[in-house]
Amino acid sequence: MSKPYVLGVDIGGTNTVFGIVDARGHVIASDSIKTRKHSNFDDYVEELHTGVMRLLKLHDAEDKIYGIGIGAPNANYYTGEIQNPPNLPWGPIIPLAEKVSKAFNGIPVSITNDANAAALGEMTYGAARGMKDFIMITLGTGVGSGIVVNGQVVYGHDGFAGELGHLVVKRNNGRVCGCGRTGCLEAYCSATGVARTAREFLEVRSEPSVLRNLQIEDITSKDVYDAAMAGDKLAKDIFEYTGTILGQTFADMVAFTSPQAIILFGGLAKSGDLLMRPIKESFEKSLMPIFRGKTKIILSELKESDAAVLGASALGWEAKYRYEDRSVPAVEEPTAAS
Amino acid sequence: MSKPYVLGVDIGGTNTVFGIVDARGHVIASDSIKTRKHSNFDDYVEELHTGVMRLLKLHDAEDKIYGIGIGAPNANYYTGEIQNPPNLPWGPIIPLAEKVSKAFNGIPVSITNDANAAALGEMTYGAARGMKDFIMITLGTGVGSGIVVNGQVVYGHDGFAGELGHLVVKRNNGRVCGCGRTGCLEAYCSATGVARTAREFLEVRSEPSVLRNLQIEDITSKDVYDAAMAGDKLAKDIFEYTGTILGQTFADMVAFTSPQAIILFGGLAKSGDLLMRPIKESFEKSLMPIFRGKTKIILSELKESDAAVLGASALGWEAKYRYEDRSVPAVEEPTAAS
Repeated sequence: MSKPYVLGVDIGGTNTVFGIVDARGHVIASDSIKTRKHSNFDDYVEELHTGVMRLLKLHDAEDKIYGIGIGAPNANYYTGEIQNPPNLPWGPIIPLAEKVSKAFNGIPVSITNDANAAALGEMTYGAARGMKDFIMITLGTGVGSGIVVNGQVVYGHDGFAGELGHLVVKRNNGRVCGCGRTGCLEAYCSATGVARTAREFLEVRSEPSVLRNLQIEDITSKDVYDAAMAGDKLAKDIFEYTGTILGQTFADMVAFTSPQAIILFGGLAKSGDLLMRPIKESFEKSLMPIFRGKTKIILSELKESDAAVLGASALGWEAKYRYEDRSVPAVEEPTAAS
Repeated sequence: MSKPYVLGVDIGGTNTVFGIVDARGHVIASDSIKTRKHSNFDDYVEELHTGVMRLLKLHDAEDKIYGIGIGAPNANYYTGEIQNPPNLPWGPIIPLAEKVSKAFNGIPVSITNDANAAALGEMTYGAARGMKDFIMITLGTGVGSGIVVNGQVVYGHDGFAGELGHLVVKRNNGRVCGCGRTGCLEAYCSATGVARTAREFLEVRSEPSVLRNLQIEDITSKDVYDAAMAGDKLAKDIFEYTGTILGQTFADMVAFTSPQAIILFGGLAKSGDLLMRPIKESFEKSLMPIFRGKTKIILSELKESDAAVLGASALGWEAKYRYEDRSVPAVEEPTAAS
């Protein structure tokens, strides 16, 4: 095939990582730039283009890019725009696909949010290979999700489906969430949520804990993890509490799309049995009888360093926005890939 | 086309209704038999076959059936079996598709549960025409659901996806549900749930209500509806309570698949503004900001008398199980329809 590679781009709040990926999911080469260096979006795209072209030249791949897939916060798959991102400096509506496709002389581009990209990556190259129905949950600073049904990422009618971090897990007196509401899963079961639970437990409980040696406002989920691994009872209870809520909510997710697996990714997912045991216990207990023993809860198989680029790159094979120096975007069917 | 019709069959706990349907969704003719007359499943299928053949003969349609679609409780789309139905007399595993296809000399059959059939009917002939992402909610004795994503019914990896009546809406001290757990949506927002709320309200509150003139154990959702329409404050509060829970739960559903519409069907859905107003108020208030004002909550456009047969019939165009006098079912691609 004349264009054997795709470009995967992951736009994070701090770094933008990009890599050349082949059809088997090997990252041929990757590099990064600082996301927030330029307050002007065109300057950012220009630096991205320069960085990518340098990488392509190094690997004799300048004419070998089939498509470009980009994962970015609040990226809308349908419109190709980033909409109202909380952590990017370029304004409320950023025409990402158009600008990037233009910079790359019309190479087609598709974009989606980070969690959907992670799901695509997992399906194309990771733990979800061969699965047609699964849910990807990213447990990081927030809780993100990518839902796959019948082998396709669920985008919904507006491109924003899959906000499972914002299922309401506590209907009354729930914690305030970054989304402006209260009681969301993310307010309890993200890394930030774990730290909040720590502060809550330390205030309402009186038992000793090594966490009391820390400044209460500075406690992180990592501190809680370290304390729990050292045997601290209160810290272990925090993971029990977090895992129980996750397991209960996962059971609701199964009632929705009955996935073959729920796949966990992200920093908090690396807490091992501290988190996995209470998740699995509460999950099986909470499932409708008809679903018990059917859905696996497993960890991502992608290296964290590669996952974002791989996930984004998977979208490059079906990239649909192509800049053609006119105002109407062209939607094309992919012809290569697979 | 030589086979311009499909057969839609709706197997209910009391009646089995069947109809001949054309590609535009006209029910050419329909009839019914009693579901529970025969304790032997083969006898039931024989009576169904006889009834259908009589109808086909009357309308000169004996060789014009492209496929058969069947809606039945606990019907598994993938296996063609009814599995552990609570209200049917024929045992735990009923090979429905196989037996019916055999009785009809190999006409292909597909089956699904009632709520999925309703969603298919709505998409093919009703309020969801042209929609690719919507959720059908049936508010009857129980709460059923059919989820459509990218124009396809979501069956999940095991065929049992879409049990939204069993999302847990009350995590602690919730009502016992027929599924064996507690706190399910169905225990609050079905017709039965409304009656339970009435009993609960009458016991814990002291204000007057015309519902107090009834035997408390005999109160139905219809009684509550009539009382509310006559201005009874307590009865109106029951609908407020029911609608509020539905609206909150619908907001969680939107975070999942971001549907264009949530479509309500079934007896309780006909309560008009008594139910619709609190649903919509609580729905918009409960949505994540990003989803507000986008998803419609609307009523089914199918006549209740036709809906079940129409919904089942829509599946007939893509029926996949064909009995060929051998043990392995053949899966075929549909060639006609559309």
